[in-house]
Amino acid sequence: MELRFEIDARDGRSSARAGRLYTPHGEVETPAFMPVGTQGAVKTLSQEDLHSIGAQVIVANAYHLYLRPGMEVIEQAGGLHAFMGWDGPLLTDSGGFQVFSLAQLNKVTPEGVAFQSHIDGSRHFMTPEKAIDIQRTIGADIIMCFDECTAYPATRQDAETSMRMTLEWAGRCKKRWIELETHDQALFGIVQGSTYRDLRQECADRLVEGDFPGYAVGGVSVGESKGEMFEVVEWTAYRLPEDRSRYLMGVGPPEDLLAAVERGVDLFDCVMPTRNARNGCLFTSAGRLNIKNQRFCADFGPLDPACRCPVCRRYTRAYLSHLYRSGEVLALRLNTLHNLFFMLELISNIRGAIRVGRFLEFKRTSLEAYSG
Amino acid sequence: MELRFEIDARDGRSSARAGRLYTPHGEVETPAFMPVGTQGAVKTLSQEDLHSIGAQVIVANAYHLYLRPGMEVIEQAGGLHAFMGWDGPLLTDSGGFQVFSLAQLNKVTPEGVAFQSHIDGSRHFMTPEKAIDIQRTIGADIIMCFDECTAYPATRQDAETSMRMTLEWAGRCKKRWIELETHDQALFGIVQGSTYRDLRQECADRLVEGDFPGYAVGGVSVGESKGEMFEVVEWTAYRLPEDRSRYLMGVGPPEDLLAAVERGVDLFDCVMPTRNARNGCLFTSAGRLNIKNQRFCADFGPLDPACRCPVCRRYTRAYLSHLYRSGEVLALRLNTLHNLFFMLELISNIRGAIRVGRFLEFKRTSLEAYSG
Repeated sequence: MELRFEIDARDGRSSARAGRLYTPHGEVETPAFMPVGTQGAVKTLSQEDLHSIGAQVIVANAYHLYLRPGMEVIEQAGGLHAFMGWDGPLLTDSGGFQVFSLAQLNKVTPEGVAFQSHIDGSRHFMTPEKAIDIQRTIGADIIMCFDECTAYPATRQDAETSMRMTLEWAGRCKKRWIELETHDQALFGIVQGSTYRDLRQECADRLVEGDFPGYAVGGVSVGESKGEMFEVVEWTAYRLPEDRSRYLMGVGPPEDLLAAVERGVDLFDCVMPTRNARNGCLFTSAGRLNIKNQRFCADFGPLDPACRCPVCRRYTRAYLSHLYRSGEVLALRLNTLHNLFFMLELISNIRGAIRVGRFLEFKRTSLEAYSG
Repeated sequence: MELRFEIDARDGRSSARAGRLYTPHGEVETPAFMPVGTQGAVKTLSQEDLHSIGAQVIVANAYHLYLRPGMEVIEQAGGLHAFMGWDGPLLTDSGGFQVFSLAQLNKVTPEGVAFQSHIDGSRHFMTPEKAIDIQRTIGADIIMCFDECTAYPATRQDAETSMRMTLEWAGRCKKRWIELETHDQALFGIVQGSTYRDLRQECADRLVEGDFPGYAVGGVSVGESKGEMFEVVEWTAYRLPEDRSRYLMGVGPPEDLLAAVERGVDLFDCVMPTRNARNGCLFTSAGRLNIKNQRFCADFGPLDPACRCPVCRRYTRAYLSHLYRSGEVLALRLNTLHNLFFMLELISNIRGAIRVGRFLEFKRTSLEAYSG
């Protein structure tokens, strides 16, 4: 089956919309927050854990999986779903961002990118075609074009050159995707263009001409201000077709989700909730707290009295504080379960609010509580 | 309620017996293997995990909990059950072993032990009375006398002096326990005496005169040979009353469980299954394997085809190998779940075999498979 996207509610006073993505591995309600399982595992969590907190779709990374365990193993396993024991929807990032941020970069040419593995220094050459081949082997339900993620800040000249490369590569990705006849994997185009309005708009328009099953906004959350990021979203979102889903890559904290949904975004992924959790920084309905703080050592209430997650139902702040201070690995997992549940509950409440026509009220009251 | 121990099956051809311990927090079928949660958490596992693999009782450590989070926090929490969110039976070791092995030891006197914390170097003085007070605050269903764990090897003179100190301290523990009127916590006496038959027997006899609700064999698994260890168990077990449970402390690998049950032991605890798991060393019905081995990278079978644990039902050796190699914390938890399930399943099968009068056959066939 091909990816199908249905919108079943629109907010009358903003661009927020709620709907469903139908993938070969099941439905995803949108707006959706997608936990990140870079290496084929959401850090500290099992696939059972992910189901138990209501994760509907997760994101893996083609660059990481290509380097380890390698495509031979993934292919023999029958794809990533089978390899990792996850039968729900999967999305893979092509690894463009990682090639530019993690690998030791040797050379970018119009043909592709020569780089050295961040794991063992081995040499590789990645092209748009190869990125599609890799993602075909991995077999995710949604796959991404191989793009050049422009560094921030970028001069207009650099941003334009980079954006044109991304467009060129998007065309080659699409061509390869058509050749492979792997249409049960939906290929998303990625809008680049740094913080330049005309570049972002040109990139969006050209990608839309290319007719992709979905679109992403990339090259954000790379150091620019929140104001700049939301300008980029505003410039871009309304030029993308209403009937395709929109994915804001690498975003974000709770307040950013609310702001981006308001601007018409449907999909999010971010390592922040899981990474923060491992550092002891936890989300609650009344704002963030750091479990390392001395005052939690003898606090026998739940992390967040308003939370229904498995951690808040059973454990106290004092116990979580003790686990963290004692170096127990369990601390990392319980913190992660809580933070991801918080994000999934937030996005679920956002969907509910859109459906009953109260998105802006929900946004206002949750931000008030959250910053209280 | 006071601890009650009932034996409902005896093996006709060995000293093996199967029964039940009734504790204020529920029943424990014996023989039992007790996972170790030193700091109030079985490493990498949540309390839900422990329930899910059928753990009936867990062991925590008074020395560790006394130092961190400290008795004030445990008391305010209402005891360790409430603090850690575990409502099943709990046993605490008094921490004698840890005072002698982990802490920087300053001085042992007949009154008690002066030591420095292994965490922050703070100075403490532990006495038998204080060990009982601490364990009362912790509130475990079974608590242990504060003993002197004799080093191995020990001269007869040293072993005798140490054993007499342990007996003296056991008397003071019992006295304090009676004063506190905390009889819903069953106090176990610990047999010491190193590898000397007469010392072990004298210690056992004197403890039995003291009439404890249960008895443990301590000072084993400290460097002596397996032959020596099982001699100690044989010398001791038959002098302990038939109607009280017998706990072999710090043992052990699957083959040692079988050998000790044969000699009349009812309770075991050991960090080995969990520690091995975190090092990638996994138990299977066909023997041990190390998941770090290259040959598992592309092995798409379960860890142990004969195992019904949550890990073997969902994940492959290849995936576990990938998680381990990629440094994913999830590897530690899945490995731990499997190894503990293996031990709990083994001891459950041992109970079943005793009940149907086939313990020795079960022992023989499982050892054959395991060493195959």
